[in-house]
Amino acid sequence: MAKPQQACDVIIRRWQSGTLQPPTADIVASEEPLEIRVRGQAIAITMRTPGHDEELATGFLLSENILHNRSDVTEIAHCREGNTAEHDNILNVFLAPSVNVDLEQLTRHVFASSSCGLCGKASIESVKQHFPSIESQITISGKLISSLPDILREAQPTFDKTGGLHAAGIFSLEGKLLVSREDIGRHNAVDKAIGHLFLAGANLEKTILMVSGRVSFEILQKALATRIPIIAAVSAPSSLAVEFAQQNKQILAGFVRGKTLNIYSGADRVT
Amino acid sequence: MAKPQQACDVIIRRWQSGTLQPPTADIVASEEPLEIRVRGQAIAITMRTPGHDEELATGFLLSENILHNRSDVTEIAHCREGNTAEHDNILNVFLAPSVNVDLEQLTRHVFASSSCGLCGKASIESVKQHFPSIESQITISGKLISSLPDILREAQPTFDKTGGLHAAGIFSLEGKLLVSREDIGRHNAVDKAIGHLFLAGANLEKTILMVSGRVSFEILQKALATRIPIIAAVSAPSSLAVEFAQQNKQILAGFVRGKTLNIYSGADRVT
Repeated sequence: MAKPQQACDVIIRRWQSGTLQPPTADIVASEEPLEIRVRGQAIAITMRTPGHDEELATGFLLSENILHNRSDVTEIAHCREGNTAEHDNILNVFLAPSVNVDLEQLTRHVFASSSCGLCGKASIESVKQHFPSIESQITISGKLISSLPDILREAQPTFDKTGGLHAAGIFSLEGKLLVSREDIGRHNAVDKAIGHLFLAGANLEKTILMVSGRVSFEILQKALATRIPIIAAVSAPSSLAVEFAQQNKQILAGFVRGKTLNIYSGADRVT
Repeated sequence: MAKPQQACDVIIRRWQSGTLQPPTADIVASEEPLEIRVRGQAIAITMRTPGHDEELATGFLLSENILHNRSDVTEIAHCREGNTAEHDNILNVFLAPSVNVDLEQLTRHVFASSSCGLCGKASIESVKQHFPSIESQITISGKLISSLPDILREAQPTFDKTGGLHAAGIFSLEGKLLVSREDIGRHNAVDKAIGHLFLAGANLEKTILMVSGRVSFEILQKALATRIPIIAAVSAPSSLAVEFAQQNKQILAGFVRGKTLNIYSGADRVT
């Protein structure tokens, strides 16, 4: 197996003090799905940074109260059957015959989660819901995007008190805050914000989603599900978030801080 | 229904410049499980901050490609059957008869995840695995805990490049770094670190787990599964993390920054 890639090269354009700089190389953290199989059955899929996958599966099974002694694990190996492109993302954990695993209970007792909406789809392919790409040619100014974090922060009452919450805000193209929500889970904050506007009957085709932290593939997918064409984050995007945004023609800005930001997708529509 | 609590009061002890201060009141962000039901069936449990639950469920179902029009949702209401203590954490989403939901596929296609190991257990009770409490009377100095973030940060090669990863480190009681791992998911980083030492046959009863960000209930549970008695975080704990640490006699420190830190649990064993 090739050495796993913990970081990926991307080409970005930096917006700095009012000017879009020429394309430049940058690096983002890798994000890929890992399917964990026990006794031939998929029991979990998690979005992870490749590398140390055997340890990840072991820690997961420890937390699920399945492993107790070192000898419970006989071997851990990447899959060598089927589609070769997925081999490095499927891991078989071989347990000693004495280990008691109620596979039915393990899989029956776990469902989807909003804090990691992708978690554990039955196959890696099913991780991606199929929503059509963004068609609109909406443009946005870097200056407007850079004004959003301060507005969002002012709307974060609980974070101020606890320092413990993620925030998501949805803005009009003029930079007006339409809704902001806080939650201990970053995906929950996005779900609440899009849920609020959907229940109000709003059309999100001309809005911007701003999140207070990092931005993963899932957040891009949630935006696409509701036709939000522009996503901005205070912190870093993952590799899969960048790839997803490019494929679906979403504008993706990261590290929106002060007078600078990075454009990872759709730079031709940032003015 | 009472107004949901987005933040909870806790009593902490601050360790500052070598001295443990008297107990003082503080506030942490609320974390509780929410079970989402569609057509009478539980389809997801997510750990969330209470409030705007109807919006959260709506956003979740949008992302799952189940909702398309406002009229698809007829009503959303908290459960009023069974155990009253859980009413506010169970939500029924009533869909128009025309909405096509393949419940079997929805639940079959989602499994556990390591990035939110609790997600979607079949019932709220099953969220908690049952591991015995910590019995040892291990003590630790505030000074030693406060030295850990710098050591962990030095061991974060990919974060330096991408700004996009969480880190988890496990240290000896003398402050020696035994393993550090990075991942895009905070729980994955913990799983990798504990998995590494488990596979190496190590005993974790005299170790400290340090994480680079916030600390949720799940991270405390992963530590307890491997008998780690001391957990420290650079950022805030959730309400459920504090409660869990107190119940299971774990020492929990948060906001470990520079020469100060907050002790949320086990302050009598911090010297």
